[in-house]
Amino acid sequence: MNIEIVAIGNEVLSGFTINTNAAFLSERLLDEGWKTSRHTVLPDDPASLRSGLNEALARNEIVIATGGLGPTCDDLTRAIAAELFDSDFRRDEEIIADLKKRYGEFFETINDQATVPVKAHVLKNSVGTAPGLVFSENGKILMLLPGVPPEMRAMWQNEALPYLKAHLPKQERYFFKRMNIFDMSESVVDKHLRQLQEQYFDVEFGIYPGQKVLGVHLMTKAKDSDTAMARLKVPYEYLLNQFRENFFDSASGKISESVHEYFLKNGLTLAAAESCTGGSVASALTKLPGASQYFLGSIVAYSNDMKIKLLDVPEKLIQEKGAVSEEVVAAMLQGLYSKTSCDYAIAVTGIAGPTGGTPEKPVGTVWCAAGKRGTSPKVWKFFARGNREMVIERSVNVVLAGLLGIVKV
Amino acid sequence: MNIEIVAIGNEVLSGFTINTNAAFLSERLLDEGWKTSRHTVLPDDPASLRSGLNEALARNEIVIATGGLGPTCDDLTRAIAAELFDSDFRRDEEIIADLKKRYGEFFETINDQATVPVKAHVLKNSVGTAPGLVFSENGKILMLLPGVPPEMRAMWQNEALPYLKAHLPKQERYFFKRMNIFDMSESVVDKHLRQLQEQYFDVEFGIYPGQKVLGVHLMTKAKDSDTAMARLKVPYEYLLNQFRENFFDSASGKISESVHEYFLKNGLTLAAAESCTGGSVASALTKLPGASQYFLGSIVAYSNDMKIKLLDVPEKLIQEKGAVSEEVVAAMLQGLYSKTSCDYAIAVTGIAGPTGGTPEKPVGTVWCAAGKRGTSPKVWKFFARGNREMVIERSVNVVLAGLLGIVKV
Repeated sequence: MNIEIVAIGNEVLSGFTINTNAAFLSERLLDEGWKTSRHTVLPDDPASLRSGLNEALARNEIVIATGGLGPTCDDLTRAIAAELFDSDFRRDEEIIADLKKRYGEFFETINDQATVPVKAHVLKNSVGTAPGLVFSENGKILMLLPGVPPEMRAMWQNEALPYLKAHLPKQERYFFKRMNIFDMSESVVDKHLRQLQEQYFDVEFGIYPGQKVLGVHLMTKAKDSDTAMARLKVPYEYLLNQFRENFFDSASGKISESVHEYFLKNGLTLAAAESCTGGSVASALTKLPGASQYFLGSIVAYSNDMKIKLLDVPEKLIQEKGAVSEEVVAAMLQGLYSKTSCDYAIAVTGIAGPTGGTPEKPVGTVWCAAGKRGTSPKVWKFFARGNREMVIERSVNVVLAGLLGIVKV
Repeated sequence: MNIEIVAIGNEVLSGFTINTNAAFLSERLLDEGWKTSRHTVLPDDPASLRSGLNEALARNEIVIATGGLGPTCDDLTRAIAAELFDSDFRRDEEIIADLKKRYGEFFETINDQATVPVKAHVLKNSVGTAPGLVFSENGKILMLLPGVPPEMRAMWQNEALPYLKAHLPKQERYFFKRMNIFDMSESVVDKHLRQLQEQYFDVEFGIYPGQKVLGVHLMTKAKDSDTAMARLKVPYEYLLNQFRENFFDSASGKISESVHEYFLKNGLTLAAAESCTGGSVASALTKLPGASQYFLGSIVAYSNDMKIKLLDVPEKLIQEKGAVSEEVVAAMLQGLYSKTSCDYAIAVTGIAGPTGGTPEKPVGTVWCAAGKRGTSPKVWKFFARGNREMVIERSVNVVLAGLLGIVKV
């Protein structure tokens, strides 16, 4: 079964809006065992929409399109889809009643929004005004969802997914296991995947590099979960054995999630001292709901003055050793123990660039420290390749991976 | 001229990676006056890649594809593109020399990465290992860029854009002016745009909502910049007059950029105290190169204890007024003046959710403060709609917008 996700709208094609809808839908479809064959983004223009949707319907059994269902002049999806399925329009009294209930009698665009193609099944929009629509003919399904992400997500959960589950034949589906590996070269992991691929022809292996982290996917098509998991077990455990030291658990593939769950589960607290990462360690952790239960905070000591005043780093140490040094990162860690009540602490200082590098300490030189109160800390240096953005992202992942290494002991 | 952007990779099609590359490229292309006709995402599978790239080349003069250029088993783009253009391979000694210089003699995948199609022009990868490639034949250009975003961005700037500028015919192009407006409802701005659209039929107006910020674009097709700018001048100034109070300057549409440039230019310093934004204010500012020249740092006081110990917020005040209150945010700001040498300070505390809300202070309640040392601070409350991610992002934008309001006076 082929599924294509189409996003409609000039705001996506101009790059001002990132197409998160397609990613959301693909992830949710994969949860159900359905793989997406293609994503397409089309402009708000009748000819492109007509040909784009036609091509998608020719290639796939299911096309899910988001956007262009509203009442404004550039919302064309409903009309073009009705044309493709040769459908007249009708006025839907249920939509009228629902919109009046939620938005009042004098809701301006009510007649427009309640005008739906005769041949379409209506999907209720519980949080916005534009209904979703499903056309189904000759083994092809065209599902139209709103483009505003929260409306689309609510409709997917309440209306669209139940519709697909009820209308699609039960068949073999995909199951997958994900593993995450930090600080390991892609080519080393890839060698093992190639070997496994030769042995396990019914498993698909995928490798997804991030900044100092790799996601590895094992996927297989099967009738049920037990069959699939039995098939994935041996190659999965082989990889786990190979990379046990560098393995971390996270559904999203983010080390921050792994740290977050460990600290929540174990009722421990954490504080950070950041220089080159400039708040990105704290930001990564606090994006996850519940972070306030373990994360005390971060002292983003970007200036030397703040390192001295807020983290008690001796001024002389900075003058003698430099702000990016083993001694200073260790002092930053000590500062956290004295200034906060944290159980664990992490510190990072480095040269993110593009300027500030020297022959001895080039851009990308980063010193990290991680420790548990009352024990001797782990202090290490690494070199982050790449531009400023990469140095920051890599530093976040490396210091969090170092922390995981300590807490797991 | 039609341009299609193709992203290649199962990680995008599975929804694990959001296709930010397409958005980046479309924005940069528009900067040069080129509109994107379509985005497509294809899987790591030879048949789909072959047909997908072939279709794209049939529809467009320029196809820019990202991803699948690495040395691993699922990197197929180079081979498929060579096949489509009927090209043999050669070993590129310049790539060998460059990779040896940057990664050492024993860089494992060096031979693979230096094997390039004879018919392709090579784009140098200055921050990673996979070179970019350009095929150009019969008026069609296929440009292949790496999929890792920082590598792709660096290559775009240094290699890909200069190539396109040198090889594309000069013709009528799009010109646009962007304006950024904070804290203004989309429907208020939209009304003005509709009125302008009726008067200025040769200008395209677009409105792109972000988190408490709006981007407004005025676009027109013209032979040269002078003609275009003369045409855009009157409607632009009309909008500027309407929204002068809420206007901010930024090529990227980010308030952080506007703050960054102001502080750099005026030689002033800034410090932050963050609770609900959890380091995201600091992270937004320090992502921009040169931030260390004005940004002293941020005290991410996520816990009450850190607010008390590091920002001198009286414990009693937190008990009496709550951590999310006018009094506490004002005390956080005062704490910055005493703990750092900053000229300006900002503070933010709120309830990001999903839990922690009460009937009096629901999720989304945020208190902000911004001030100049020695003057009375601006302290204000706002309500951020949406989920945790949106509350954080909106809070960052609102507190930075408030700071801009002060410095501009």
